[in-house]
Amino acid sequence: MSGPRAAGVAMPLGPGAEFDRVRRIAAALGPRAAGLGDDCAVLAAGDTNLVASTDVSVEGVHFRREWLSLGEIGWRATAAALSDLAAEGADAAGVLVALTVPASARDDDVVALMTGAGDAALDAGARLVGGDLSAGPAWSVAVTVLGWAQAPVTRAGARAGDGLWITGALGGARAALEAWRRGAEPSEAARRAFAHPLPRLRAGRWLARRGARAMIDVSDGLGADAAHLAAASGVGLVIELERVPVASAARDEAARLGIAPGRFAAESGEEYELLVVLPPHFEGDDVLAFRSVAGLELTRVGAVRAGAGAQATLGGAPVTLAGYDHFAPRNR
Amino acid sequence: MSGPRAAGVAMPLGPGAEFDRVRRIAAALGPRAAGLGDDCAVLAAGDTNLVASTDVSVEGVHFRREWLSLGEIGWRATAAALSDLAAEGADAAGVLVALTVPASARDDDVVALMTGAGDAALDAGARLVGGDLSAGPAWSVAVTVLGWAQAPVTRAGARAGDGLWITGALGGARAALEAWRRGAEPSEAARRAFAHPLPRLRAGRWLARRGARAMIDVSDGLGADAAHLAAASGVGLVIELERVPVASAARDEAARLGIAPGRFAAESGEEYELLVVLPPHFEGDDVLAFRSVAGLELTRVGAVRAGAGAQATLGGAPVTLAGYDHFAPRNR
Repeated sequence: MSGPRAAGVAMPLGPGAEFDRVRRIAAALGPRAAGLGDDCAVLAAGDTNLVASTDVSVEGVHFRREWLSLGEIGWRATAAALSDLAAEGADAAGVLVALTVPASARDDDVVALMTGAGDAALDAGARLVGGDLSAGPAWSVAVTVLGWAQAPVTRAGARAGDGLWITGALGGARAALEAWRRGAEPSEAARRAFAHPLPRLRAGRWLARRGARAMIDVSDGLGADAAHLAAASGVGLVIELERVPVASAARDEAARLGIAPGRFAAESGEEYELLVVLPPHFEGDDVLAFRSVAGLELTRVGAVRAGAGAQATLGGAPVTLAGYDHFAPRNR
Repeated sequence: MSGPRAAGVAMPLGPGAEFDRVRRIAAALGPRAAGLGDDCAVLAAGDTNLVASTDVSVEGVHFRREWLSLGEIGWRATAAALSDLAAEGADAAGVLVALTVPASARDDDVVALMTGAGDAALDAGARLVGGDLSAGPAWSVAVTVLGWAQAPVTRAGARAGDGLWITGALGGARAALEAWRRGAEPSEAARRAFAHPLPRLRAGRWLARRGARAMIDVSDGLGADAAHLAAASGVGLVIELERVPVASAARDEAARLGIAPGRFAAESGEEYELLVVLPPHFEGDDVLAFRSVAGLELTRVGAVRAGAGAQATLGGAPVTLAGYDHFAPRNR
């Protein structure tokens, strides 16, 4: 539930119970809200723009203490918020952390979490510039990130004929969750994908400069985030699941569950890769240039067409992807 | 735990368990933090400055559902954060709300809280520009405020010989809390002071333009906040409790408890008035001008001298004021 553009107008979101709720809230708020529903808020600031986003991670909802160290909880919460800046093509500048801790928490615990948050900020070229600390019933980390973007990339610029691309590879975070759910330890690579996501700030800035029409980070799952992008742009998207790059850490879990790897990866949430719409002329040489700058793969996974919604296909047949809804406990 | 100035250097804070904790955290964070301890983070933005602060309010710690409506909870949390912008002399621009709600919360509940938050933003000349929504074990509202200030006022500029002033009148919020604690209903005026605080943005900007040397909002209690200001400025402060303006809503509760009204008022937290250090030449005509612009009283309550710490006096004798420590449940 972030980001504005036109005053009082909420950005269209894709389907899902959480997004229905945000839509209803935004409608009820009317002129109090400057439009909610993009990755970030954008405020004009002289010849550039302030880009800001806030993200809350709650114990028992977004993470479990037995899965992650406090340093990892701090890193992950901060990286998740910074990922919203990446999807705007922004530079990260500052991070504020509002931390709620149980009464039993020791100073060392607070320092450990904040050190993880601070390391994620430093790694993104930003720093912790403020915060707040309160007692509360559980660990909860609300991270606000501030950055600058000359020409922020929204979700709304996709046009029929454009290509749909994804950075990196998907599925590692889900592989870790699936292992934990069945009482097993995830592989080190899967665990790292979940505990230590890397916001794609450098990639986002490069893509913005190279004419990205629309961008979103993959937090709700590729299908759900594609649906948000399609709704905001007023277009249809087609995703060919065979093309989705699958993290090697995800293949074993996908096989264990009997799910096609591309589908397993496309249903994985909190991946923090960038789903980006690029103009039709973006091609092989551009991909090589991206790789050398970002140190990441960039893969074409589908296309933009006239219409509405995001349609995934496997072997040419339509597939309905499961979402990753933060209000649906079964997904945790 | 907000705000920077010099890289990696924490602003000195006054005494108190919460502030000891923040000091230890800031020291442990080293270069990850750009200095924590002022009201706001300040980031240069062309010919002006971005000023940002984050504040978390938690059910059972900062408020109780039986005391306040959800709209009041949203207003109060947002006003508290906006008050940090007021203390910098900033213009408010945008508000982001990261909201955690129990699974039992209905859409109408979320809308009610966010409407209160949005009304507080609108009233300050700002708007809700982003947010996040999560399930969690209790209501928790993390509000981040963004504003602009050409010349932000810090806590650090007080000099010996300056005057110490306060906007408005204090004690109303405490009067409400004292009534609730003994199972009574507070007076309407006391209740309103607690539930519907008014951040002093217009007053803060006027005082900044008129040469305020240092400013802080009264959230921890006049004595504790004066101690923060004294520590940051490297000076001593003297507060004459007879001079502290007492809200009329506070007099009955002070009398009931047998506490001198000025002391009762000076020990009241979450008041959101501005404690401001003004140069020696600030005088009667300036107070009249302030009143007509801000619609508020401005009262000289003490002075700045060489030394350290904040010393309150009553009838010329030193008085140790109780603080208002968010980690001390006895104060709730």
